[in-house]
Amino acid sequence: MGIDELIGRPPDRILLAHGAGGPAMRQLIRTMLLDDDGVFPEGGAGPGAMDDGAAIPVGDRFLVIATDSHVVSPRFFPGGDIGRLSITGTVNDLAMMGAIDVVGLTCSLVVEEGFYGEELARVQRSIRATCREAGVRVVTGDTKVMGRGEVDGMILNTTGVGWADRVLPTGGLSAGDKLLVTGHIGDHGLAILALRHDLGIQGDLRSDCAPLNDLVRVLLEVGGDDVVALTDPTRGGLTAALHEMGAGSGVGVLVDESAVPVRDEVRAAADLLGIEPMHMANEGKAVIGVRASAADRVLAALRDHPLGRDAALVGEAIDEYVGRVLLDTGFGRRILAEPDGEPAPRIC
Amino acid sequence: MGIDELIGRPPDRILLAHGAGGPAMRQLIRTMLLDDDGVFPEGGAGPGAMDDGAAIPVGDRFLVIATDSHVVSPRFFPGGDIGRLSITGTVNDLAMMGAIDVVGLTCSLVVEEGFYGEELARVQRSIRATCREAGVRVVTGDTKVMGRGEVDGMILNTTGVGWADRVLPTGGLSAGDKLLVTGHIGDHGLAILALRHDLGIQGDLRSDCAPLNDLVRVLLEVGGDDVVALTDPTRGGLTAALHEMGAGSGVGVLVDESAVPVRDEVRAAADLLGIEPMHMANEGKAVIGVRASAADRVLAALRDHPLGRDAALVGEAIDEYVGRVLLDTGFGRRILAEPDGEPAPRIC
Repeated sequence: MGIDELIGRPPDRILLAHGAGGPAMRQLIRTMLLDDDGVFPEGGAGPGAMDDGAAIPVGDRFLVIATDSHVVSPRFFPGGDIGRLSITGTVNDLAMMGAIDVVGLTCSLVVEEGFYGEELARVQRSIRATCREAGVRVVTGDTKVMGRGEVDGMILNTTGVGWADRVLPTGGLSAGDKLLVTGHIGDHGLAILALRHDLGIQGDLRSDCAPLNDLVRVLLEVGGDDVVALTDPTRGGLTAALHEMGAGSGVGVLVDESAVPVRDEVRAAADLLGIEPMHMANEGKAVIGVRASAADRVLAALRDHPLGRDAALVGEAIDEYVGRVLLDTGFGRRILAEPDGEPAPRIC
Repeated sequence: MGIDELIGRPPDRILLAHGAGGPAMRQLIRTMLLDDDGVFPEGGAGPGAMDDGAAIPVGDRFLVIATDSHVVSPRFFPGGDIGRLSITGTVNDLAMMGAIDVVGLTCSLVVEEGFYGEELARVQRSIRATCREAGVRVVTGDTKVMGRGEVDGMILNTTGVGWADRVLPTGGLSAGDKLLVTGHIGDHGLAILALRHDLGIQGDLRSDCAPLNDLVRVLLEVGGDDVVALTDPTRGGLTAALHEMGAGSGVGVLVDESAVPVRDEVRAAADLLGIEPMHMANEGKAVIGVRASAADRVLAALRDHPLGRDAALVGEAIDEYVGRVLLDTGFGRRILAEPDGEPAPRIC
């Protein structure tokens, strides 16, 4: 059955995979949440509801709006916490659309009755510190309390509004464009999983959770119109991001496996857990499509930025294998299959 | 201990009252969520973080942002459901700030693993229908799935962005201004409570859940600058709304109890439950402060609108009893004490 025939047909039951950032989630959104009648309509300058946010033309600029609810478990982890994640997640969604001039963020808290006030205060301090780091403000909020047992601790929704001079689509690649990642892959997902599974090596694993708006500012200054596609490899990891970029652009993606930066400790933890780091969420990385002629210039500029020191050229867009990702392993080429999203629930 | 001394001091544990829209919630927000250092800063044109949203000056207009998470239980009730509520709640928060030119809404879904797809589809249909009714669009969203037992069914966050030519504060009253309500009070709260308590009269009780942007458009056309204060009596009901308006304006509020419109069936249910309808949430009503000279003209215009047919003049701002609400019962005057917010959790 094609996607078109599924429109309006709900799944029988919601599965964890429906929130995992992969094909099941995209199908849920396409079949239930999109229609041509008021909800997620076409239009605006953004390439549609499957992007990181919406872009609305206002004068000669675009007002970009992005939203994320954060349910990460555990709430505190090496390299971050739910407060830091909620600010960086939304700042990054805006930045991935080109909206680095942030008007403001909202922060809506749903908290369980009996939650410790000191823990809430700790999350609030982290929100404040991350706002200062990113140079953004929370301008309004909402607070709801649910009864004991009705929600596991807390949920934070952060919605962001910003201005973009030009909207950067996820799916703006043409064959021949180069693909860059801004650093090591899999850090966030493996840090969370190592903590949950008590792997004993968790001290070496840290979430990469960081606001990317300044890195994107540098990218746009140096790359200009040669930057053609941008997204962040969050749920579903680099694998999902590359599939979205390729499918959205109508191209295939060829990746040089040995060029994808993965930390040794992330590789070790992933091997222990039997998972692929490229499938795991990142919270401080971007995947960038650039014209081939600009790749070296952009890569050098990224490496000059504290959040891009380990940036790498990992692949290119090709005109075969449209919508698929081809992995050059060094011993041959194989299709990088997309799993049904992030292999762990509540990763962000 | 004054509020100033409480800044930064978290409560020991979060209580249901911290989400109930009354003094405990306002104190939580003042003591934990506000600071002068990035989060809920002063500035913007809005009267501060205690209002329905934030207003940011852009050129000669204001970009208004409002957010609400919806946790109502049960999810379907006479007169509405969680989907309708999530759209009207945010459309109304924008409208109460004067932002009737809506740019777009976001809709972020957190849903429990195992949730029935058909129920989710029913909520989505309601969201679409309410968007059409209000003339607004959902432009982007987010989907998270939590494990079984980690969240009770679903939570919907809706954030709205709109333009206001002029920001209408909650606290814009001066002594002598008249207070209008746009219709019957207590309908939403009592409809939910009657359903929960299986009162048997629930068929007669319907939530008033409705988008007020068109009513506010008429209000602003007819009332112009004579409209000085506006809010909606949601959590904590008319009682909380009047306290916020009075305290925010530095005036007292005198209310003629017999003039407050309450349906007979709402009064009956409230009496059975031993609660005061004025304390209960409304989801399709506004409280309006107008210059005395404009009160009749504005009231007549409201009554010409389908959502304002039962509008009434209920009181006035006075220069005594600052921050308090004085109730004229017909047998004398008494202070209308503010309970610790909405007497029922998960009302919206």
